[in-house]
Amino acid sequence: MPDFPAEEYAARTAKAQEGMARQGIDAMFLTTEAEFRYFSGFRTAFWQSPTRPWFLILPRRGSPIAIIPQIGVELMETTWVDDIRPFDSPATDAPHLHLLQNALSDASTIATPMGEESSLRMPLAEFDRLRRGLSATWVDATPLIKALRMVKSPAEQKKIREICRIGSAAFARAGDLFHPGQPLDEVFRSFRIALLQEGAEEVPYLVGAAAAGGYSDVISPPGSRPLADGDVLMLDTGASLGGYFCDFDRNWAIGQASDAAASAHRHLHAATEAALAAIRPGMTAALLCEVMAQALGQGSGIGRLGHGLGIQLTEWPSLAPHDQTVLEPGMVLTLEPSLQIAPGKMMVHEENILLTETGVELLTDRTPPDLPVLS
Amino acid sequence: MPDFPAEEYAARTAKAQEGMARQGIDAMFLTTEAEFRYFSGFRTAFWQSPTRPWFLILPRRGSPIAIIPQIGVELMETTWVDDIRPFDSPATDAPHLHLLQNALSDASTIATPMGEESSLRMPLAEFDRLRRGLSATWVDATPLIKALRMVKSPAEQKKIREICRIGSAAFARAGDLFHPGQPLDEVFRSFRIALLQEGAEEVPYLVGAAAAGGYSDVISPPGSRPLADGDVLMLDTGASLGGYFCDFDRNWAIGQASDAAASAHRHLHAATEAALAAIRPGMTAALLCEVMAQALGQGSGIGRLGHGLGIQLTEWPSLAPHDQTVLEPGMVLTLEPSLQIAPGKMMVHEENILLTETGVELLTDRTPPDLPVLS
Repeated sequence: MPDFPAEEYAARTAKAQEGMARQGIDAMFLTTEAEFRYFSGFRTAFWQSPTRPWFLILPRRGSPIAIIPQIGVELMETTWVDDIRPFDSPATDAPHLHLLQNALSDASTIATPMGEESSLRMPLAEFDRLRRGLSATWVDATPLIKALRMVKSPAEQKKIREICRIGSAAFARAGDLFHPGQPLDEVFRSFRIALLQEGAEEVPYLVGAAAAGGYSDVISPPGSRPLADGDVLMLDTGASLGGYFCDFDRNWAIGQASDAAASAHRHLHAATEAALAAIRPGMTAALLCEVMAQALGQGSGIGRLGHGLGIQLTEWPSLAPHDQTVLEPGMVLTLEPSLQIAPGKMMVHEENILLTETGVELLTDRTPPDLPVLS
Repeated sequence: MPDFPAEEYAARTAKAQEGMARQGIDAMFLTTEAEFRYFSGFRTAFWQSPTRPWFLILPRRGSPIAIIPQIGVELMETTWVDDIRPFDSPATDAPHLHLLQNALSDASTIATPMGEESSLRMPLAEFDRLRRGLSATWVDATPLIKALRMVKSPAEQKKIREICRIGSAAFARAGDLFHPGQPLDEVFRSFRIALLQEGAEEVPYLVGAAAAGGYSDVISPPGSRPLADGDVLMLDTGASLGGYFCDFDRNWAIGQASDAAASAHRHLHAATEAALAAIRPGMTAALLCEVMAQALGQGSGIGRLGHGLGIQLTEWPSLAPHDQTVLEPGMVLTLEPSLQIAPGKMMVHEENILLTETGVELLTDRTPPDLPVLS
């Protein structure tokens, strides 16, 4: 049932433990879905329910310890994790705290994610109790986990390549799926269905917009306004397969493209070309952002123009001026230049790539430079 | 664009503020999607990205304060929230901390969710810095928020009623959608598509299982094993509309039902009937669980047999022996009795209901007592 052979998870754990030894970390304490799955292989939609907390502990040596609700034991037994310590959940007396304290009692230094992009998926009051009950020093596990997760293994690359192919196949059907007069929420619905038909397992994320000559807000849910002549339509997905995401978008003009929208699309295409030509291992995320910004004729102060991608829709690094992460082979990134056309009118374009030793592999079917027209 | 008129959010906020005044709470500090949306009306799929934190502060008097990434300002301006304080994100220097400290500087007692079913959706290191930088006492907001969110307004009830109707319509097509020989992952895919076709906006949750004479694990992703004669198939969804969930399941026998599976289904149906007959405002969640357990001939020590439902797939209360929550009109609940048939073989059945002043409204098309057979 797990998505990868046990060796994949064992290798991840071994790398984490090397880092822990280097940094003097005795145990890593994980509560969030992405980290839990990354090291254990435990994948379930059940994280949608906030009721129960789940815990994975990586000791500096030896195998991971899963301290989990009883309901997860059978699925956990299909993974490579042998040390499973179940507790009753939900319950009033937080029976997991005792198990956590036992498992962590010998650790002087405990790392848990507490830095950029992290959260704590357990009740804060229980975490505070746990911290008070242990005499350990708590440090940030983010740099270590980030360094591991940013570089995708060949097995991970294969999953992301496949979901990007599925996304491309769904986008290729735009001419059949979308038409003038179609309400935007129906556009979204038909695209979700197309993604599933093409082989996506889930569509956890779909945003987009349609407005005359360009859009502005790109994070709203769709309304029921029909696609109108002169609109620019953008859809940005977020489909997944085996727990790995694609994240890219496409733009179309409805009926006809304004000169400004057509020009913006060519500029966005060119900015992506510039990034594809310039990207190589050893450059920083900030510099790759700068390459795109310059191609767009934008100065500094520009926002994020892409990011990592994998178990989550967005991951480190950020292609943004502040992010000095050095790019490495095996990183999967989105290139996401955006351009202001007029006040309240912008366009954004996104492709997904894999950075290799020798260059770059485009994971998405490249959009053409000319804004496609749907009629 | 918001899902409800401003009055809905103003009423929720006013009720929260009454509770805050009673409990001596000066400000409520919220970081999680459900709470953020409950009070602001801000709904976006963008929470899928872990990159940016989002903050809503309810003062004891006056209007909510949204401290949010720049990218959310335009959508937030469509809500009833006027006080929007944007920050650059992602960024290295946590510019939001300064805004948070300013907004909370006058508060002596700050409440944030830290109890059952809660989490903290911001980096722990930043939260610790915020706590250290303020001289306030931090208390648990969970009881107050739980009391509010558990009782659904008529506008919320309408949304849940509609998504339950959509779920029922999709389940009613089972005879056309599922057939012996169909791999389980294709069963899942076709059911997701059916839910969207019937009007669901998203399908954030779908689990299920198929195995000879009953299933065991109900939280795994689907494999590719084909449905076989004698299997019991169960699907449990998790579709949403306007940000509100349904959560119910259906069972079918493939080809033929074993006596044990048919009998179990009748028992589960009867347990639900017992709950529907017994439920009334004023009884506890634990007692409603006990009613179902007794109808199943089970003793104490049984797990959770249902739960609240709404903005999240599962919400308080738990229909479980430990939960002494008093049931109130306006609560939307799942009734979810389960039964062990044999070692490693169980069945679970789930309906969604609204508790009213005078009784109960079934939100899902009631399953028949006899296990339906698909051939």
